[in-house]
Amino acid sequence: MNETLHIIKVGGNIIDDAARLDTFLSAFASIKGRKLLVHGGGKLATKLASDLQIPQQMVEGRRITDAATLNIVTMVYGGLINKQIVASLNAKGSPAIGLTGADASSIVAHKRVHPTVDYGFVGDVDSINHRFLSTLLEQGLTVVMAPITQDAYGQLLNTNADTIAQELAKALATSYHTTLIYSFEKKGVLRDVNDEKSAIPVITRETFEQLKAENAIFAGMIPKLENALTAIEAGVSKVIIGDALELQELLNGKNGTAIC
Amino acid sequence: MNETLHIIKVGGNIIDDAARLDTFLSAFASIKGRKLLVHGGGKLATKLASDLQIPQQMVEGRRITDAATLNIVTMVYGGLINKQIVASLNAKGSPAIGLTGADASSIVAHKRVHPTVDYGFVGDVDSINHRFLSTLLEQGLTVVMAPITQDAYGQLLNTNADTIAQELAKALATSYHTTLIYSFEKKGVLRDVNDEKSAIPVITRETFEQLKAENAIFAGMIPKLENALTAIEAGVSKVIIGDALELQELLNGKNGTAIC
Repeated sequence: MNETLHIIKVGGNIIDDAARLDTFLSAFASIKGRKLLVHGGGKLATKLASDLQIPQQMVEGRRITDAATLNIVTMVYGGLINKQIVASLNAKGSPAIGLTGADASSIVAHKRVHPTVDYGFVGDVDSINHRFLSTLLEQGLTVVMAPITQDAYGQLLNTNADTIAQELAKALATSYHTTLIYSFEKKGVLRDVNDEKSAIPVITRETFEQLKAENAIFAGMIPKLENALTAIEAGVSKVIIGDALELQELLNGKNGTAIC
Repeated sequence: MNETLHIIKVGGNIIDDAARLDTFLSAFASIKGRKLLVHGGGKLATKLASDLQIPQQMVEGRRITDAATLNIVTMVYGGLINKQIVASLNAKGSPAIGLTGADASSIVAHKRVHPTVDYGFVGDVDSINHRFLSTLLEQGLTVVMAPITQDAYGQLLNTNADTIAQELAKALATSYHTTLIYSFEKKGVLRDVNDEKSAIPVITRETFEQLKAENAIFAGMIPKLENALTAIEAGVSKVIIGDALELQELLNGKNGTAIC
């Protein structure tokens, strides 16, 4: 339980930009010790769907995943993006293995049940095979997780990457002193969404409720903060939200928003 | 060295047909003990390239892999087909993990050098991380390998699945009593390509040279037989070529062509 683990989620806008992704991966590769990367999908899946004339439907920022769209995200997230990241990390001296939740049943989920919206092949996480993931980490491998899971019946499911990062952090916090970082294109949780200097240094459950009541947080950040607070309450040591191109500053507490 | 391992390559025509693939995977899942599946790509990559208007060029049955085509095969082989097979095997009670050669550097290759043809991003295998693959097999996981590898510099490479199966078999034959099966849509190596009853029961290096000299083998089978004989000569216990829908009959020696 003395060993540390860094779980880092990297968001879409970084993935869409080859130069920025490379900068991020160099910084990520230089983090010492056990680490796990969860990547989102970026715009490539949307572009491929458009090129193939598969109409995309979004409800509250979530993609409705019909069968054709599931194939697209399995190809793009589980294939192209995942393997490009793995290949890059290997070359940067950080031996990596890319997985979806289907592999070794590392993340088992169920198809989302919702009273009014049919999200299609979207998964909500049930369990993490943290013992298997630990065997990989203990062999010195960096795990690179794509946001695809599987149910108990062999159905692949599109699954939110922020949630996957939270669930992995909670499960692995039983074995490791775990830090979870949500990294994206913003400097942290901003008081003013247009002012990158307005990052709130620390948010607790108490201040979160207060900020929410005051409508002082951008709506899109609320699910990420809910994920972060849930992780802390379940035993994750530290959660940090901040700029993917400032990994070192996030880790040493200089920048970003710390959730505790 | 007493433990047995079955390495099975399944070819394209089976993968293109969901019902036949399911039949094959049920039979594969029921094989007892350590096993590893290498899958080809099928026609889906060609179809996707066509839908995206990415022209495809073939030289002597090999796909010339430009950058756009590499992305296609990484998506289709490493993403869609690989994860669908893994999900299906998990549901059939055969816990599986899907990999490309990039993952844990399980297959390191180099970009093909050829005096007259530029194959593009096509890999020839240099080494297998058989120790890592053994740790997965020893955990009871079935390894599902997509025909994508990586070079030492982080470049993904499209790589022939028959060759991958041979290289895996040779490397793992140092640790396991290894049987390699090349399974596809034919009953074995046929004397008459139009007569499924003409499978040659046994081929040795000597009879192979003889059959070749007599032009008695379909040209497309020659690289597969070269792969098979190389595997035998490098310590693989048994190689069988035959019908993917007759796995049991291939294993118990009733059908197919045995290479020894």
